[in-house]
Amino acid sequence: MKKIRLAVLGLGRIGRLHLRNLCTAIPDVEVVATFTPSPEGKAFSQELRVKSCDEPTEIFSDPQIDAILICSPTSTHADYVEEAARARKAIFCEKPLDLSLNRVRDTLQVVANCGAPLMLAFNQRYDPDFMAIKRYVEGGKVGDVYMVRIVSRDPSPPPIKYIEHSGGLFMDMTIHDFDMARHIVGSEVREVYAKGAAIIDPAIGQAGDIDTGVVLLHFHNGATAIIENSRKAVYGYDQRLEVFGSHGMIEARSPLKDNVRYYDETGGHHARHPDFFMDRYASSYLLEIEAFIDALRNRRPMPVSGIDGLQAMFIADAANKSLREMRPVTIS
Amino acid sequence: MKKIRLAVLGLGRIGRLHLRNLCTAIPDVEVVATFTPSPEGKAFSQELRVKSCDEPTEIFSDPQIDAILICSPTSTHADYVEEAARARKAIFCEKPLDLSLNRVRDTLQVVANCGAPLMLAFNQRYDPDFMAIKRYVEGGKVGDVYMVRIVSRDPSPPPIKYIEHSGGLFMDMTIHDFDMARHIVGSEVREVYAKGAAIIDPAIGQAGDIDTGVVLLHFHNGATAIIENSRKAVYGYDQRLEVFGSHGMIEARSPLKDNVRYYDETGGHHARHPDFFMDRYASSYLLEIEAFIDALRNRRPMPVSGIDGLQAMFIADAANKSLREMRPVTIS
Amino acid sequence: MKKIRLAVLGLGRIGRLHLRNLCTAIPDVEVVATFTPSPEGKAFSQELRVKSCDEPTEIFSDPQIDAILICSPTSTHADYVEEAARARKAIFCEKPLDLSLNRVRDTLQVVANCGAPLMLAFNQRYDPDFMAIKRYVEGGKVGDVYMVRIVSRDPSPPPIKYIEHSGGLFMDMTIHDFDMARHIVGSEVREVYAKGAAIIDPAIGQAGDIDTGVVLLHFHNGATAIIENSRKAVYGYDQRLEVFGSHGMIEARSPLKDNVRYYDETGGHHARHPDFFMDRYASSYLLEIEAFIDALRNRRPMPVSGIDGLQAMFIADAANKSLREMRPVTIS
Amino acid sequence: MKKIRLAVLGLGRIGRLHLRNLCTAIPDVEVVATFTPSPEGKAFSQELRVKSCDEPTEIFSDPQIDAILICSPTSTHADYVEEAARARKAIFCEKPLDLSLNRVRDTLQVVANCGAPLMLAFNQRYDPDFMAIKRYVEGGKVGDVYMVRIVSRDPSPPPIKYIEHSGGLFMDMTIHDFDMARHIVGSEVREVYAKGAAIIDPAIGQAGDIDTGVVLLHFHNGATAIIENSRKAVYGYDQRLEVFGSHGMIEARSPLKDNVRYYDETGGHHARHPDFFMDRYASSYLLEIEAFIDALRNRRPMPVSGIDGLQAMFIADAANKSLREMRPVTIS
Repeated sequence: MKKIRLAVLGLGRIGRLHLRNLCTAIPDVEVVATFTPSPEGKAFSQELRVKSCDEPTEIFSDPQIDAILICSPTSTHADYVEEAARARKAIFCEKPLDLSLNRVRDTLQVVANCGAPLMLAFNQRYDPDFMAIKRYVEGGKVGDVYMVRIVSRDPSPPPIKYIEHSGGLFMDMTIHDFDMARHIVGSEVREVYAKGAAIIDPAIGQAGDIDTGVVLLHFHNGATAIIENSRKAVYGYDQRLEVFGSHGMIEARSPLKDNVRYYDETGGHHARHPDFFMDRYASSYLLEIEAFIDALRNRRPMPVSGIDGLQAMFIADAANKSLREMRPVTIS
Repeated sequence: MKKIRLAVLGLGRIGRLHLRNLCTAIPDVEVVATFTPSPEGKAFSQELRVKSCDEPTEIFSDPQIDAILICSPTSTHADYVEEAARARKAIFCEKPLDLSLNRVRDTLQVVANCGAPLMLAFNQRYDPDFMAIKRYVEGGKVGDVYMVRIVSRDPSPPPIKYIEHSGGLFMDMTIHDFDMARHIVGSEVREVYAKGAAIIDPAIGQAGDIDTGVVLLHFHNGATAIIENSRKAVYGYDQRLEVFGSHGMIEARSPLKDNVRYYDETGGHHARHPDFFMDRYASSYLLEIEAFIDALRNRRPMPVSGIDGLQAMFIADAANKSLREMRPVTIS
Repeated sequence: MKKIRLAVLGLGRIGRLHLRNLCTAIPDVEVVATFTPSPEGKAFSQELRVKSCDEPTEIFSDPQIDAILICSPTSTHADYVEEAARARKAIFCEKPLDLSLNRVRDTLQVVANCGAPLMLAFNQRYDPDFMAIKRYVEGGKVGDVYMVRIVSRDPSPPPIKYIEHSGGLFMDMTIHDFDMARHIVGSEVREVYAKGAAIIDPAIGQAGDIDTGVVLLHFHNGATAIIENSRKAVYGYDQRLEVFGSHGMIEARSPLKDNVRYYDETGGHHARHPDFFMDRYASSYLLEIEAFIDALRNRRPMPVSGIDGLQAMFIADAANKSLREMRPVTIS
Repeated sequence: MKKIRLAVLGLGRIGRLHLRNLCTAIPDVEVVATFTPSPEGKAFSQELRVKSCDEPTEIFSDPQIDAILICSPTSTHADYVEEAARARKAIFCEKPLDLSLNRVRDTLQVVANCGAPLMLAFNQRYDPDFMAIKRYVEGGKVGDVYMVRIVSRDPSPPPIKYIEHSGGLFMDMTIHDFDMARHIVGSEVREVYAKGAAIIDPAIGQAGDIDTGVVLLHFHNGATAIIENSRKAVYGYDQRLEVFGSHGMIEARSPLKDNVRYYDETGGHHARHPDFFMDRYASSYLLEIEAFIDALRNRRPMPVSGIDGLQAMFIADAANKSLREMRPVTIS
């Protein structure tokens, strides 16, 4: 079998994770080059015996490279995606493509014109628990979907500096849940109602963002989704997905940090929730790359498209509007 | 210790349950009379060796009776409460006092004028799990309350005939959750947003009601509550309460019908959720009567007042308005 | 339907529990008399409006009494059972019939000669969880039974005074587990190996007993049972039953004192195990009496016989011998 | 930091797992050579860019190699360990050192004479759940240990061919549990009582082995361990460890294959237990190698010694004797 040859742009924590997975856990692929301005990233690449380029152009222009993973800062995504598309590379890009809806639309147009395969990295779709839920729903075990319930609470807020440029809670954090709701329900959102406030840390409010949010989504097929987000849960990283329908209910809750139960005079005790999203979703990062490679090798459509990214952004945008205008907002 | 002497008006399933509890499980009380038009109820009373009166007036006029439990149909509540109040009896009344907010206000005025103690039967406050949660919240273990999450799904819808006169989902079923949210949060509701539809059974829609509803409550103290109700969950009676705050999270989920776990080639299996609210909340019915007797005996204020009932009705009313007008509604 | 008329001998905590259940929760029965020397017991009987006799002979000689519950101290069981049998009453007797195997044999002979129905009160057979397990096993869901695992740990040891006359851990406490193992496996025990020591409280050792024991039972049908007992678990009353076989495994663990889960910075926390066997097994006491009444009314064989009691005592006897002689003991 | 240079002998499934972990997940080590007669193993080595030697002597004689992992068939362990010891290499050896107690003793003498560090691969000690239990016990949270309970049930029996040369259930499978019990209790075994039979597959009995076993261990410090093993559980790989003592109880049960719970009309359902020991214990294999590297780098005693292996074999030997002679056997 012909090896697929890849390059990775950006070697922050996600880029390094993908690079390691590609080098150690995925068969019949070869990472031939990386680019990162960071000395730490370069060293990491060398340790895995992967050539570190001085310029991204070396990667776009290398005819031997089949596919490019874009893991660099958000502000570079759209440019890199367009360049990669013009170079006729397959593209795997971390979300979001851009914080501007217009730019995203333009970039997707370029990608479409070039016919380049593009997969957007909504990694949570590849969490094994959520995949099992999706299979149950698709297999009819839940029947008609009445209600999707998502809880996502972070262990602690990101730095204010990050919040200032993240696009806001709905665009940066809830976007995963918007995508998940669409993915599970299999229909598009008709109406969005959002509430939120900065009740955990006033500095987040001063930065113009909220740290606690609730969003109701109503889908064209009649399903509803209730999403609740918080930037801080002292008990750890709490991620839940539940689907309730006419034939049953299915749910996944975060696995704990260990499986030990201790009982003393005061009762029973067990471990915390995970402390870090990369621990919680470790499997999903591997499985999403496998899905990308698999689609590439078998010339199948990318399992998460640019349109999926765009739709999630539409919902986030409507949620922001609903929050500002204090009313439900229809998506046309 | 002087025995408290009680009478029970109405011997449907709830009246019979209270009567049995009073006769067999609560010390130092005596039920001296009941009234019910139903032959079945009369027979039940006799089996417990309690005199069955021919007219409710016999009860109101009996000077030996200290307290009256009103478990008759909703349409009789307000009249009976007023009569009992005028007779200077202590009153325990099933919810709601009346479907009309105005009538409730008038009746409460009568009760206040007479100085009669009145406890409204929001039995779920006395569920031992929810009581434990309340203790945790009051003890500061949750910190500032950010979010209350309530799920209440019935095993199957009531008869359409019932739905036609129930006051609607929010007034009949969600009212428990409105009360619970107030009870837990310890603040009043500022804003209500409600959505709902008849997606389970079109006959419910034709009767002018919904069978699935979501309500967001925003409280003056900054807390939010998310309530989700369904008239039908094939897997049984699902009742959940969760409180999330700055110091932690606490939750109760419905106990299952047994504690057995079976494992075979296909995985693990366990019992259904309860099938019936009177099984699920059996303890609460006993504990609420104990609380009523205890307040009476120790001349303490009733632990659930008529005002509590009124406040829950205000919320239900606002939820109905929000549903109709498709916008958040402020409670003044 | 003709009412079954009963009497209760002995009104300690178990006698009172049965009396209350009979008076309040079981239809179509009437308790017409009790006997107890204790003033407290007499008062309890009067409160339930049941005549308290001065002598047990009044009960044995009353032709209107169909059945007698014997809940008096162990040392009176055999005499009362024989008298009741001679009076042709149906008998429900708390375990054990007697601490002496010979006396038990003699008493059972009297019962058999008189043709009196006798049910022995192995209440744990009527725990709803263990009943569910029994149904699974009988229904073939576990396949051939390889292994039965029983854990029974008490919250704290009984008074030394009790231990001095209890017959010892195996005869007093493990006897329930011996019966349960026989009940579940559906075969007789071939070999017993027992170990034990007084490691919790030296006073128990000085009283000639052990407080911690392990017993292996090997059954004629090839199944094995592992029973572990302790007189003290600081975390509460821990009762487990597991059956493992060729087609699957089924288990029940003690329900906790509530269903609340609390999460804070240190992890998750939940309630203690029950503190008291009468709480843990409350349902079983009601269900065993119902089974007794049901067998009586429908003239079916008693569901737990005197032979069941005898067999469990044989096992306890062999366990004591194994403990003393430090070797496996065969039951012939 | 100086890199530790390693070689791996034997590239079956365990050897390959260690090799991959060393190459991809452990910092500051370098695998410089492997030896395996298998072409598949050689290819695996090359894929990880590690030189594959033609003869093990190339490895023993290479002065640059600091440490050798011995993952070859059991029959080669003792020879390889001795050669490695004479070459003054640090040694990590899969269990057992040999099936003959005498040979193990001789080999350990050679190792001691050469002063070579030797770690025996009881990987289950490095399972994160069991490590947490060990920490609780050492931290005094369980108090005096009364009882250790271990269940180990395989999803299905190994091939008869394997069973013929495995040394038998106690030596091959229970040996892990013997080591774990010693590890947790922190005392040596005084007495062993074992029972077992071939009840799952008669072919196992014809091969002279048992497929189901129960072993009671009594330790010098008063603790007891109950170990139950089965070669086949249709519901998957079931591994449990529980420690019960004067201050509390702690337990770990196998994590399931996913964290999804599905509820339908028949009740709740969840995933199987793991199907394969290498999935269940994946973390332990990584953590044991880290512990080996850490001890090596910091010149600390090896955390699992040859004596640990010998002690576990003594227990297995006594268990076999107990099984044959049908009596408890004392270890001197």
